[in-house]
Amino acid sequence: MIKEAISKIRPLDKKFFKMARQRLDILTKPLGSLGRLEDFAARIVAIKEDTSPTLGKKVVFTFAADHGVTKAGVSAYPSEVTPQMVLNFLAGGAAINVLARHAGADVAVIDIGVNYDFGDIDGLIKKKVVSGTKNMLEGPAMTRAEAEQCIEVGIELVREYKRVGYGIMGTGDMGIGNTTPSSAIASVITGRPVAEVTGYGTGITEDALKNKVDVIEQAIAKNSPNASDAIDVLAKVGGAEIAAIAGVCIGAASERVPVVVDGLISTAGALIAHTLEPKCAEYMFAAHKSVEIGQAAMLEKMDLTPIVDLKMRLGEGTGAALGMSLIEAGLRIYKEMATFESAGVTDDKVD
Amino acid sequence: MIKEAISKIRPLDKKFFKMARQRLDILTKPLGSLGRLEDFAARIVAIKEDTSPTLGKKVVFTFAADHGVTKAGVSAYPSEVTPQMVLNFLAGGAAINVLARHAGADVAVIDIGVNYDFGDIDGLIKKKVVSGTKNMLEGPAMTRAEAEQCIEVGIELVREYKRVGYGIMGTGDMGIGNTTPSSAIASVITGRPVAEVTGYGTGITEDALKNKVDVIEQAIAKNSPNASDAIDVLAKVGGAEIAAIAGVCIGAASERVPVVVDGLISTAGALIAHTLEPKCAEYMFAAHKSVEIGQAAMLEKMDLTPIVDLKMRLGEGTGAALGMSLIEAGLRIYKEMATFESAGVTDDKVD
Repeated sequence: MIKEAISKIRPLDKKFFKMARQRLDILTKPLGSLGRLEDFAARIVAIKEDTSPTLGKKVVFTFAADHGVTKAGVSAYPSEVTPQMVLNFLAGGAAINVLARHAGADVAVIDIGVNYDFGDIDGLIKKKVVSGTKNMLEGPAMTRAEAEQCIEVGIELVREYKRVGYGIMGTGDMGIGNTTPSSAIASVITGRPVAEVTGYGTGITEDALKNKVDVIEQAIAKNSPNASDAIDVLAKVGGAEIAAIAGVCIGAASERVPVVVDGLISTAGALIAHTLEPKCAEYMFAAHKSVEIGQAAMLEKMDLTPIVDLKMRLGEGTGAALGMSLIEAGLRIYKEMATFESAGVTDDKVD
Repeated sequence: MIKEAISKIRPLDKKFFKMARQRLDILTKPLGSLGRLEDFAARIVAIKEDTSPTLGKKVVFTFAADHGVTKAGVSAYPSEVTPQMVLNFLAGGAAINVLARHAGADVAVIDIGVNYDFGDIDGLIKKKVVSGTKNMLEGPAMTRAEAEQCIEVGIELVREYKRVGYGIMGTGDMGIGNTTPSSAIASVITGRPVAEVTGYGTGITEDALKNKVDVIEQAIAKNSPNASDAIDVLAKVGGAEIAAIAGVCIGAASERVPVVVDGLISTAGALIAHTLEPKCAEYMFAAHKSVEIGQAAMLEKMDLTPIVDLKMRLGEGTGAALGMSLIEAGLRIYKEMATFESAGVTDDKVD
C-alpha cells in the first residue's frame, strides 16, 4: 500500500502555477503585492490541478502515542499525560480544539500508539498499532511492520477524509517524550550532530537536556538506523505518531491534497515521507517555525519555509491550524478579488 | 480634542499582565508553549483591564487620500486609481474586503482627502478634509489645522465605533503616492537617511526609486519639518490618511482599545501618534513586516515586533486583517482552553 501510494505521486505541473499567476496578476492590487498569500493560492491551484479550486472541509489529524524512551527521563511530564490529553481533545478543551475552531477546521483524534485502553469512548479514532513504543535505548522502538502499519493508517485516513469532502489536512501529535524520537530522526537523516537538533521539549532543565542528547546518541549507536532507509529510521528511533504523520504526508501527495505540517514532531514525519519520495514536499506547507531547534534543519532539507513564527512549541497541530487559515486567506484572495477590468480600475502604469 | 485624548492615555498596568499570566499558566499546555499567542492575550487583558475580555466586533478603518507629490513621478500608478479603488472597496472586491471577511471584520471606508467628488454614494464615510494634499516639493502638504482635523477624525471614529460594540480596530490606507510621505516621515522622525527608508511602493523602477529619494530629500529641505513636533512633520511632509491613522492610534490608546497597525503607511501614522505620546505604542499591535524598507526603522523606534512576515506590500489594512485574526486566536486560547484541574490533566513535572 505504501509503495502503491508513492507510485501515484507526481510532481506539480508548472502550467498550473502559470495559470494561477495569470489570474493573480489581473486582480486589483500591484503585481505580487500580497507576497506569500499569492504563492499559497498558486500552489493550491497546482496541487488540485484546478484553476478555481475549493478547499472543502478542513481537518487536523492529531495522532497520539506513547514512547518507551520516557523511562530515560527525557520529558518534563509523565506518560500518563498522553491519555489525559487525548480525553481533553475529545472534550474540546485543548489548544488544538480552540485553534481549529478558530480556523474552521475539524480535529480528528487518533490513538495510534497510546499505552492506555480507552475502551468504547466516543469520538476517538481507534487505530492503535502499539501500546507505546519500546525503549529505543534497549533496541528498536518498533518493528518495521509496525512502522509500516502506522504509515498505512495515515494514508488511509487521507483517503477516507478526502472521500467525504475534506480538501486540506493538517498534521498534529500528542505523545509525552516525542521530541526525543523526532530529534533522533532529524539527526540521522540530516546528518547534523544530535546536540544541534535537540531542544527543551515541553520544558526540561539544562541538565535534563544534556541527558536527552546522551540518550538520543546512545539510541542511535545502539540501533544503527540506515539513514537512506526511512522506514528503518522510523522503526528504530521513531514513534507511532511520527509514522502516521509520514503516512498522511504520503497520502496527501498521492491524493493531491495540500497538507499543512505542524512543528518538530510533524516535520520529522514529513521528513520520513520526503526521504521515501522527495516529491511529497511539493504538497506540504510548513505551518510555523517551532522554538524546537531540530525543526529548522529538517525544513531546510525539504526546502520549506514556515508560514508564521509565533515562538510556539506545543504541537497537537496548533501551528497547522493557524497556517491553514492563512493558506485559505490566500486562496480567497485568488478567488474572491475583483479584476482591474471588472472593477474599472486603471491598470496602466505611469512609468 | 487631540490634547484631551492624549491626556487620557495611561500606561498599561503590570498587574493585569500578571493576572493574565496566572490563567495562561494553568491551561493544559506546557508553560509559555503558545509563545506570542499568549502575549497577545495578556496584552488584550491589560488594555481592556478585564481578566475575561471580549473583543467585540472588529473593524478595519481604510482611509483614502490623494497626494500632490504624485506630480513628481513618485508612483507607478496615476492618482485616478485612488477613487477607483475606493469604489472597489465599497463594492467588496478589493483585497481588504476579502481578508476582512476572512477575519470576520468589517471594513470602514473613509474619504479623508481624495481629490474626487464621490457625491451621495452608499457606504462611504465622508470626512474629506482636503481634496488631495499639495505638492510638498513646493511647500507644506497641508496646513497644521488640516493635519489636526484629520487626526480628530481618527479619534472620533474610534469613539463612535467603540460606542456601538467594536472592541479591536485595524488601520488601513489607500492613496496613490502615499509611500512617499510615509518614507519622509520615517526619515525625519527616526533620523535615518531617506534612501534607507524609501522603497519601491506599488512597483516603481530603479530609476524612479532614485527620483523618489531625491523628491523626498528636496521636500524635507524645502519644508524643514521639526522632528520633535509630530504635527509639524505630518502637515509639511505627511498626508491626510496618515494623519487620520495617527488619530486612530491616539483614539485607541485613550479609549483603551487595541489597535492593529498595518504596513508602511499605517506605521508612519502610528509613529506620529507615538511621537505625540509614546504610551500609544502599548495599545498597538504591529500586524506584519512590510516589504517596504521604511517600516522596520519605525517599528524599532516604537519597540514593536510584527506578527507575521508574508512579504506583503499592499496596504489597505490587509496585514491588519490577518494580524487581527491571530490576536483573536490568542485571546480564544486564553478564554476557551481547559485548565489542568478542569480537564484532569497532571501538572506535576517529573524533573
